[in-house]
Amino acid sequence: MFSKTGKSGRIGLLTLAVGALMTLTTATPATAAVDPEVVFIFNTFSFLIHGVLVMWMAAGFAMLESGLVRTKNTAAICLKNIALYSVAGIMYYLIGYALMYTNVSADGWIGTFSFLYNPGNAELILINAENATPEMLKAVTDGGYSSMSDWFFQMVFVATASSVVSGTLAERIKIWPFMLFVVVLSGVIYPIQGSWVWGAGWLATMGFSDFAGSTLVHSVGGWCALTGAIILGARKGKYGPNGQIIPIPGSNLPLATLGAFILWFGWFGFNGGSQLALGSAMDAAAIAIVYVNTNLAAAGGVLAAMTLTQLLYKKIDLSLTLNGAIGGLVAITAGPDLQNHLMSIIIGGIGGVLVVVTVPLLDKLKIDDVVGAIPAHLICGIWGTLAVGIFGSGDILTQLTGIVAIGAFVVVASSVLWLALKYTVGIRISEEDEFVGMDKSELGMEAYPEFGRGSQTL
Amino acid sequence: MFSKTGKSGRIGLLTLAVGALMTLTTATPATAAVDPEVVFIFNTFSFLIHGVLVMWMAAGFAMLESGLVRTKNTAAICLKNIALYSVAGIMYYLIGYALMYTNVSADGWIGTFSFLYNPGNAELILINAENATPEMLKAVTDGGYSSMSDWFFQMVFVATASSVVSGTLAERIKIWPFMLFVVVLSGVIYPIQGSWVWGAGWLATMGFSDFAGSTLVHSVGGWCALTGAIILGARKGKYGPNGQIIPIPGSNLPLATLGAFILWFGWFGFNGGSQLALGSAMDAAAIAIVYVNTNLAAAGGVLAAMTLTQLLYKKIDLSLTLNGAIGGLVAITAGPDLQNHLMSIIIGGIGGVLVVVTVPLLDKLKIDDVVGAIPAHLICGIWGTLAVGIFGSGDILTQLTGIVAIGAFVVVASSVLWLALKYTVGIRISEEDEFVGMDKSELGMEAYPEFGRGSQTL
Amino acid sequence: MFSKTGKSGRIGLLTLAVGALMTLTTATPATAAVDPEVVFIFNTFSFLIHGVLVMWMAAGFAMLESGLVRTKNTAAICLKNIALYSVAGIMYYLIGYALMYTNVSADGWIGTFSFLYNPGNAELILINAENATPEMLKAVTDGGYSSMSDWFFQMVFVATASSVVSGTLAERIKIWPFMLFVVVLSGVIYPIQGSWVWGAGWLATMGFSDFAGSTLVHSVGGWCALTGAIILGARKGKYGPNGQIIPIPGSNLPLATLGAFILWFGWFGFNGGSQLALGSAMDAAAIAIVYVNTNLAAAGGVLAAMTLTQLLYKKIDLSLTLNGAIGGLVAITAGPDLQNHLMSIIIGGIGGVLVVVTVPLLDKLKIDDVVGAIPAHLICGIWGTLAVGIFGSGDILTQLTGIVAIGAFVVVASSVLWLALKYTVGIRISEEDEFVGMDKSELGMEAYPEFGRGSQTL
Repeated sequence: MFSKTGKSGRIGLLTLAVGALMTLTTATPATAAVDPEVVFIFNTFSFLIHGVLVMWMAAGFAMLESGLVRTKNTAAICLKNIALYSVAGIMYYLIGYALMYTNVSADGWIGTFSFLYNPGNAELILINAENATPEMLKAVTDGGYSSMSDWFFQMVFVATASSVVSGTLAERIKIWPFMLFVVVLSGVIYPIQGSWVWGAGWLATMGFSDFAGSTLVHSVGGWCALTGAIILGARKGKYGPNGQIIPIPGSNLPLATLGAFILWFGWFGFNGGSQLALGSAMDAAAIAIVYVNTNLAAAGGVLAAMTLTQLLYKKIDLSLTLNGAIGGLVAITAGPDLQNHLMSIIIGGIGGVLVVVTVPLLDKLKIDDVVGAIPAHLICGIWGTLAVGIFGSGDILTQLTGIVAIGAFVVVASSVLWLALKYTVGIRISEEDEFVGMDKSELGMEAYPEFGRGSQTL
Repeated sequence: MFSKTGKSGRIGLLTLAVGALMTLTTATPATAAVDPEVVFIFNTFSFLIHGVLVMWMAAGFAMLESGLVRTKNTAAICLKNIALYSVAGIMYYLIGYALMYTNVSADGWIGTFSFLYNPGNAELILINAENATPEMLKAVTDGGYSSMSDWFFQMVFVATASSVVSGTLAERIKIWPFMLFVVVLSGVIYPIQGSWVWGAGWLATMGFSDFAGSTLVHSVGGWCALTGAIILGARKGKYGPNGQIIPIPGSNLPLATLGAFILWFGWFGFNGGSQLALGSAMDAAAIAIVYVNTNLAAAGGVLAAMTLTQLLYKKIDLSLTLNGAIGGLVAITAGPDLQNHLMSIIIGGIGGVLVVVTVPLLDKLKIDDVVGAIPAHLICGIWGTLAVGIFGSGDILTQLTGIVAIGAFVVVASSVLWLALKYTVGIRISEEDEFVGMDKSELGMEAYPEFGRGSQTL
Repeated sequence: MFSKTGKSGRIGLLTLAVGALMTLTTATPATAAVDPEVVFIFNTFSFLIHGVLVMWMAAGFAMLESGLVRTKNTAAICLKNIALYSVAGIMYYLIGYALMYTNVSADGWIGTFSFLYNPGNAELILINAENATPEMLKAVTDGGYSSMSDWFFQMVFVATASSVVSGTLAERIKIWPFMLFVVVLSGVIYPIQGSWVWGAGWLATMGFSDFAGSTLVHSVGGWCALTGAIILGARKGKYGPNGQIIPIPGSNLPLATLGAFILWFGWFGFNGGSQLALGSAMDAAAIAIVYVNTNLAAAGGVLAAMTLTQLLYKKIDLSLTLNGAIGGLVAITAGPDLQNHLMSIIIGGIGGVLVVVTVPLLDKLKIDDVVGAIPAHLICGIWGTLAVGIFGSGDILTQLTGIVAIGAFVVVASSVLWLALKYTVGIRISEEDEFVGMDKSELGMEAYPEFGRGSQTL
């Protein structure tokens, strides 16, 4: 396992606790610590099953975004979502994981440039052994979990960060340049800032706390979306000549609803798996607490957004309610280990309020965020990270430091990248293509060729 | 853990069996019982993973109902489904769980009024300990599973009961009063009757058997749907002046199909997790049996409904076939532990037949059930509970007693509640709003703004 | 457990390894092998959870196919998918499993004709025991996993094979004859060839290697689809009088995208669960490797298909990209245990290329494959099975023998069956019904009754 620590701020703690138990319980076999091989299996299985749930969130983003764009851009957003998930996985294998997790020093800000992250040696020896020895087994179980189960779990997080970006920039960004952005985001930008905290680098040393990634995943995606939206500009027709905001309704709301449900469902993996262990009663009990907070924060976000839109607009807004759920989820993600669940309802509820309040603000700034990803992922990501300093065990100044440091890095890096793409290959489709829709211009097809007005509309 | 028993009719039995094993095996280490901490982890993980599957059923109901209403009411039904899931979770945290599971006496009919159900003390001590002692660990593992994992698993069941109601009353019930109904249903009505059986109250003492909730969950939702449908009245245009029944087709059948598949998928969690334990070979083998019965009953429901509609109508009816799957699932839910799987095909098949037969019956009574939830959940819930007395280990008279007692309670309580809402805030949207559709009148949006005839149709 | 071996080529190996560990570690308690009861629970739970993921693939096929047919045939394809999943389960219970897994000799080509596969005796004794003895427990844990968990896991595979067929033959095959085909496929054809390898028959003895079923599941479905497509003929209007190929676009691409995501998600269960064990560190580590290869192969398939369609057609084709993901998944399925993940990207990428290249080839041969299942499942199934001989541990000639033997058997058996159905009950709907669409003619309903041009179109 070498120096691969895996969100090691916390796993260090866990190992400590497990170690303590082991020491303490040698004299009392009735409560002896769990067998190391069983611990290994539980930890590995937790990474895999929770990772699969997070993988499924890629489908959630695809459906949410498909439902919130116009029909003429629906096939393109589907394509982008399955492609970005693919790119993220390959880049994280080629280069990203090593950059994030190998040999990050305590004041470090980057891991190692090494290529193709393959299974640990000890595991291969065990798997290939004709006659496995206890030493071979011990070399494996000492790692605590299988190397590739950890990779898999971390990989689906980088994919999530990339998914956040695609929704904001929908309906006007060229597909291939967007893919190039994802290549760099998932291969370099995300891993570098990730190494600062989960790689056990300088921010972790400082005590910055982000359990499952309100900042490291969601706000990173959100910052990239924000810089992208500014550099790319708004969709034609979104803002009138006199500053009016023209609503462009999503074309398939049940699909968007399905997307929100998928995200909620997958988030149990996102937050629950981020306990990073399942091999002790303490870990199991802690994961259960995480699940409950995750669920209640989302519920708080739904009810807050629903109520607030009723009060503000005299109607309940479904899109904002769905984003309220997501905002609540993002908000709890930095600290879903709260031991009083009421707090998570409040944190999630504030997330829902922030979504409702921020959406019109962005429009005033003429930042065109097609699906509302910036409020839900960036604003609520910041809020959730701060909330750890308020309700949780984090220090608020340290939390702020982390938010600002990561924000600054990602804003600069992503802006440079967007601008480089803009002035080389170009990032925006032509006005005519935008009018016709990306499905026809970039894919040569229609998402719903038989459904009424479809592609003829604005 | 105190007196929190968790469907204790059965868990008592399990504990007994495990206890027996422990006693018997002390002399034979080769087959020693599983380490209590490992048992704790397995049980907790079973609650969490199976609970997540049940949570996903909320999306299933949302899709099923979205597919079976008209386009003009689709966004509203999406909203109601995500909102009711949120409300159910929060109410069950605030008050419901305690009312259902704490301090229910053997002849009891209600638990304790206490608020905010938070993690057990022993668990918090262990989680927060700098140096965990064996005693701390034992205090936790003695509970058998994590407190909040149990809460999570029970919570998704109350959400399911609420989900049943929304479909029947679609297209005409006001959103906010419906939400108030869900508040009381999930906070009070469901927990009270739940305490009678799973809380180990009077019906459990009597021997009433309902493994995963044919009666406690599905028929409870079904009774509320029935009283609601009667008090609310049928949709305008559903029944002609001379008693004709006007078919109002669902607007998106693949979405309804997706919903049925999601429910089927989630039902493995619903029934499998209701074994309430995974920490022994016996439990694991029992859960596998539950999975197989669940699957075969649904399959039986599909084939029965499909064949019967072909015979009756010379065409296969897709909606009824989907409801046949659900009817089969509901029917097996009271007793999915049958040891001859052929029985589950028969029980599920009869469920499918009941669905096909009951749908037109309700229409004759002018009870307008938009998605067919009353046949699938209420009728098949009753059937499944009786089936335990016929094919399973239950006593048929005791089963009948439980069905009637819970039915009477829920019918009275829900009727009072519906009527109170009707004569205060009102429960029905205006005729004009019904004509325009709830999406426009209550949400100010369209579910599919670009799809053809859409909102202009009946 | 008797002679029920369950993909025993590999499980034999595993048991050997575990046995070796046990022997070797008796003197070193620190690395003692996992308790047999814990192994039993892990193995059983792996079958169940991974099986549930595979079950979910049935929904994936339903959505993929719903999205790729025309609106007028959408409800029918939904019906077929839920019905075939039901039939497959029941047939595999009635007869299939026994035919595949019981008493297959080392040179055998078929198991036993025995009916109704119910739980193992030892398990029932343990479950029903008032006082379980260590002997009762040992009799169960000696089996390694619960009998019905294995059945469940194997059952979802036969359903997958059947799902492959429905897409190719969509829009023109009669529902009931198709169901009869599925009855025989899942009850007889699939189990017989399955017994040759996973039942430990002659092909397993020869060393043929197919980890999770590139050949045994996917190419079997693909061969049936191919013979069906030839015997059934193309859809009216698909091929012009002068050999032109008329594109018939799918009606709902986001639904097709959802289907592809579901398949990808479920495939972790398909391949991961096919390790057939989770009760040791070796198995856990191996499953993690399988997950990563599965993911990377799909990603490779996506990027290859996307890039190639861009190069060939100057546009990215979404349908082909989705099929590229599936092609990559099918390709890796025969050998997802590769220890260098780069290979899986290559294998999956070639799968994606094969899909793009084969689709027009089939059209040239006027073989009308509505959803592209033959390229994705048959061609990539063959490719993946050969790849085990190239990149993995298999022998290429043995691999070829298996491909040809199974192919020949399935081609002959399915052709006889299709022809028998054709000349008795008939398999093709009338020309008029085809024009009107199957939803109206076979189901009497429309999938999207309110969506614009819908059923009036070609």
